Parts: sequence; C-alpha cells; structure tokens
Amino acid sequence: MRAATVRDGEIRVEDHPDPTPGDGEVLIRVRAAALNGADMMQKRGLYPAPAGWPQDIPGLDVAGEVAAVGPDATRFAVGDRVMGFVGGGGQGELLVVHERLLMPVPDGLGWAQAGGFAEVFTTAHDALFTQGDLKAGERLLIHGAAGGVGTAAVQLARTTGAEVVASVRNEDHHAAMGELGAHTVCVPDDVEGTFDVILELVGAPNLAGNVKALNTLGRIVVIGISAGAKAELNLGALMGKRGRISASTLRARPFEEKALAARQVERHVLPLVARGAIDVPIAETFPLEQAPEAYERFAAGGKLGKIVLTMGDA
Amino acid sequence: MRAATVRDGEIRVEDHPDPTPGDGEVLIRVRAAALNGADMMQKRGLYPAPAGWPQDIPGLDVAGEVAAVGPDATRFAVGDRVMGFVGGGGQGELLVVHERLLMPVPDGLGWAQAGGFAEVFTTAHDALFTQGDLKAGERLLIHGAAGGVGTAAVQLARTTGAEVVASVRNEDHHAAMGELGAHTVCVPDDVEGTFDVILELVGAPNLAGNVKALNTLGRIVVIGISAGAKAELNLGALMGKRGRISASTLRARPFEEKALAARQVERHVLPLVARGAIDVPIAETFPLEQAPEAYERFAAGGKLGKIVLTMGDA
Repeated sequence: MRAATVRDGEIRVEDHPDPTPGDGEVLIRVRAAALNGADMMQKRGLYPAPAGWPQDIPGLDVAGEVAAVGPDATRFAVGDRVMGFVGGGGQGELLVVHERLLMPVPDGLGWAQAGGFAEVFTTAHDALFTQGDLKAGERLLIHGAAGGVGTAAVQLARTTGAEVVASVRNEDHHAAMGELGAHTVCVPDDVEGTFDVILELVGAPNLAGNVKALNTLGRIVVIGISAGAKAELNLGALMGKRGRISASTLRARPFEEKALAARQVERHVLPLVARGAIDVPIAETFPLEQAPEAYERFAAGGKLGKIVLTMGDA
Repeated sequence: MRAATVRDGEIRVEDHPDPTPGDGEVLIRVRAAALNGADMMQKRGLYPAPAGWPQDIPGLDVAGEVAAVGPDATRFAVGDRVMGFVGGGGQGELLVVHERLLMPVPDGLGWAQAGGFAEVFTTAHDALFTQGDLKAGERLLIHGAAGGVGTAAVQLARTTGAEVVASVRNEDHHAAMGELGAHTVCVPDDVEGTFDVILELVGAPNLAGNVKALNTLGRIVVIGISAGAKAELNLGALMGKRGRISASTLRARPFEEKALAARQVERHVLPLVARGAIDVPIAETFPLEQAPEAYERFAAGGKLGKIVLTMGDA
C-alpha cells in the first residue's frame, strides 16, 4: 500500500506492506484522512506515535470502508463505512484498527468530512462535556475558536444550548464563525462578560484573564498551549470563584479511555451529524500522492476548515 | 444573652438581645463553639460575616440544645442536641439557625467535640470528596495536615480507604498525626511519591511541586493560601498529567449549597462518628467569659486540636 511517510523531517509518499487485522480488529480501506497539528509535530520528530501504531505513517483521523474483519471482531461487516480517532497511521491506504475505536459514518456525511470528523469532534466533546461539564444555558468562551477543535466546539456548544462567544484573532474568519453558530465573535482583547466554561486552545497568555472572567463555579479547560505553557495563577482569585482548571490531552490516553470517548461521540454527537445540525468544514482536499503539498498548505495557516488527504475514488 | 463580640479589633464578652426563631428556624441554647481561623480574620475586620448572620458575634461552629422551634420547623424538637456550620454568631449563648443547616449530634460525642466538628469536617469532606473525588485505594497528600481541616481530612481519608501522607512542618505534631491515621507523616520538603489527590491547605509555594507529584488524572484541591496566593503554573505539565486544580471556599456559598453540604456530612460522616471511627481532637476549652483568653491561645498557634468556648454546664 501507499502511505504518507515521515522521512528525516519530510513527508514522502512511499510503499508499505499491507497490514492484517488481528483479534477484534478491522482492516480499513482508507478513503479520507485529515491533517492535524499533531502530524506537523510528528513530522518534526517532536510527537512520536504511541506504541502499537505505525511509527512512520502520520494521521490521527481516518474514514473508509471495512475491507476485512479479524477474529472476534463483531461490530462491523465488510463494506461498512467507518471513521475514527486513531493513534497514528491514518494517512495510508490501509489501516488496522480495533473495532471499539471506530464509529459508523452517518448517511449523508461525505468521505472528506468523515475523514476530518473524529479527532476534532472527539477532542471538543471530551473537553466541553467530559472535562468542562458544559450545560445548556451556560455561557462558553472559546479562545482560538477558528481551529479545527474550535469550530467543532462552537457547533457542539451551540447545538446543545450554550451561549457561545468565539475569540478569534484573524478577523477574516469572524463571519464564518458566526455562520457556524457562535453568538458573538470577537478578537481576544475584546472579550466581554463572564463565563461558566472557558475552552482554552491558545495557552498561557490567556490564563489570568480567564480566571477573572470566570463565573462562580466556572471551569477552565486547557487543551492547547501553542502560545505558551507557563503563567501566573492567582489561587485566591480561583478560590473566590470556586473555580476549576482542567488540562488534558487525548493522544496519550490508554485504549479503554479512547474507546470510551468514541462511545460518547457515537451516542451524543453522531445523532446531531445525522440530522444535519453539525458540519465538518473542509478547507481543501489533496490526493494522497500530493501529501507533501497538503502539509505545506497546512503549515501556511490562515485556513478555516480541515485539510484532508483523499484516496481511491473518494 | 452573653456573647463574644468584636469591638474595634478586640474580643469582649457583652450582652445582646435574645434572638427569636422565624419560619423554618430553630433557637439553639449553645453549649460549645469552636474558634476557627475565620474568626481571627473577622476580629481584624478582614472577613465580615455573610448577610443575614450576626455581624459582631463571631463563630462558625456551634453545638447545643434546641430551645425553641419556629413556624414550619419540623426536623428537630425542643431538647434535641444539634450542631452545625453556620455563617456567624456561634459564640453567643443563643443562636437562631435554619433547621436545614443543622445536624443531630451523635450519641457519645461530647459538647466540646460537637462544637468543634462541623466547620472542619464539612470543609474536609467537601474538599476531599465533592471537589477532589477521592476514592478508596487512592493516594492522598495533605499539605498543612496538622490544622483543624487537616486532622479532619486525615481521619476521613484513612477511614474511607485512601493512603494518607500528611505533610506537617512542626515535627512536634508528627506522632499525633500518625495516631490520627496518617500512614506517612513528613515535613513538606520530604514528601515522596505521586498522588491521586493533593489537599492544599498552605498555598502557592506548594503548587509547582504539587503538579509534579500528581498522578495521571490527579486532582489538586486548594482551600488554604495562608503562605501565598500567586504561583507559576505550567499548563503543559498539567496537560501531561491530565490533571485538575480546584479551588474553593465554603463560607461564601449560598444557603442551599451549605444545606446540601450538611446533608453530605450527615449521610457520609456522622455514621463514622457514631461508630467511633472519627474523633474531634480538642486542644483546650474556655468558658465563654474567657473568650479573649481563648482568642489569645488560638493566635499563639502550635496547638493540635480545636480550641472551644463552652457555655452553660457543658
């Protein structure tokens, strides 16, 4: 099979042996696989794939058809459309994944959208609801809302009854954020009011302001620190708010926690996708053989929506 | 009635009008009322009582007999022994309290112990279990374990199946902490290992070490900041642990949350008291008329156990 491959800090498309599904696993003929920030770090050698996953083929997002099922795999049949948030290897033509990490692709969700769905919606759902306990009627601030997780979070929060304030530095994206469902879109310095949940996708520079802007019993959920990791925290101010700061990542979790996150998304997000309440914005698709160009496009930034590699006739 | 009274930064014992219970309230003939750190701050004018409570009579802890019940008060009868964590006014001979803030005093718990029970055990239970989700089998570190909340937390955690490491700067108290149930007692610089829950009763200087010592999915609960409020937080390190920092206070909570905390203690702590698994260490008792001396004793520090004002024949 062909696969995007990390070689000496570069992406090339190379031949690899076809994998074979083991107990409880399925073999996916991949149709679409989005690029994510983690792939850029893995390309630079900074973010190795977890053990048990292809080490030199990036790709956390995958969608495709079941090509074969291993012994004791019972959730899917050959030909079923599946998608998932995987530990690596998504950007190759074939991938073996344990069936409990996979979800069915709802009718009406195209391959490119399915290939860009799992990482951002699993991350956003886990952050907003499992970590942040976001409830209907609450007021949510998302710092860095124009990224993949941010656009997923805007839609999930809007659809589940929260008031959504999207903080986005690039004003070119403000109109699109409103169309995705944000009630208010502003640059970070213009955030107004107080919040029950603050989803922090940018990092340390926002921490002090986040504590100040927290409502009583508010929750700050930190899952992105691209702008810095170290910040001063005023514990007295946090006590006064009776507040909470959670910080998390998904990739480092053990199998059973990733499978549980997939079940949460299956139960609470796929029905929203199926009824058209949630969209996966796509910025651009590239055929697998143009993976190097896709990585250049991702690194250039300024996009809103996923950049997705497509394979076969997807 | 007579009551300890804050006058120009001093404690005097003065006459006050007898209070009368309103709807849902009971009148308590107070037998014992412990001193707490909050009383010292209130004496200095730094921590005013919440609205609706006596403003010049300190005392968050109260135990006594029901002397009268107001209209629609149904939980207790005249003569019942009750105790509670109140918003203020505990250190007077009579106090009116809404019945839902009160708990029955278990048989076998003396007046002095009952008068020193509610504030520290409600705070410790809320911090360990409601905020920190402490579970059996988990490893707990308590920074500042020799204080009232700390000794309550050591006993609660030990009794519910956690492994308890007590960090206590004053080595004079180490043996007593072991007798209360701590599996390990050490000075703060000698803490070893990693923890699922860290109860922080000292403040900012411990924050960086706490994050380092956190297990995956660990929780830091900050409820004391006497040694400082501002500390650097490494969000990347917290993400790596998938950790959580909660900070809280009890006194500022609205009525319904205080009543809920009282129900939690009633259900989950009083049975432990009733079967003798939990003790309220008493350092010294003073009759009400010696309240100024009691405050001096509290301020001198170095004690282990509560300092309690007693009234009537308690």
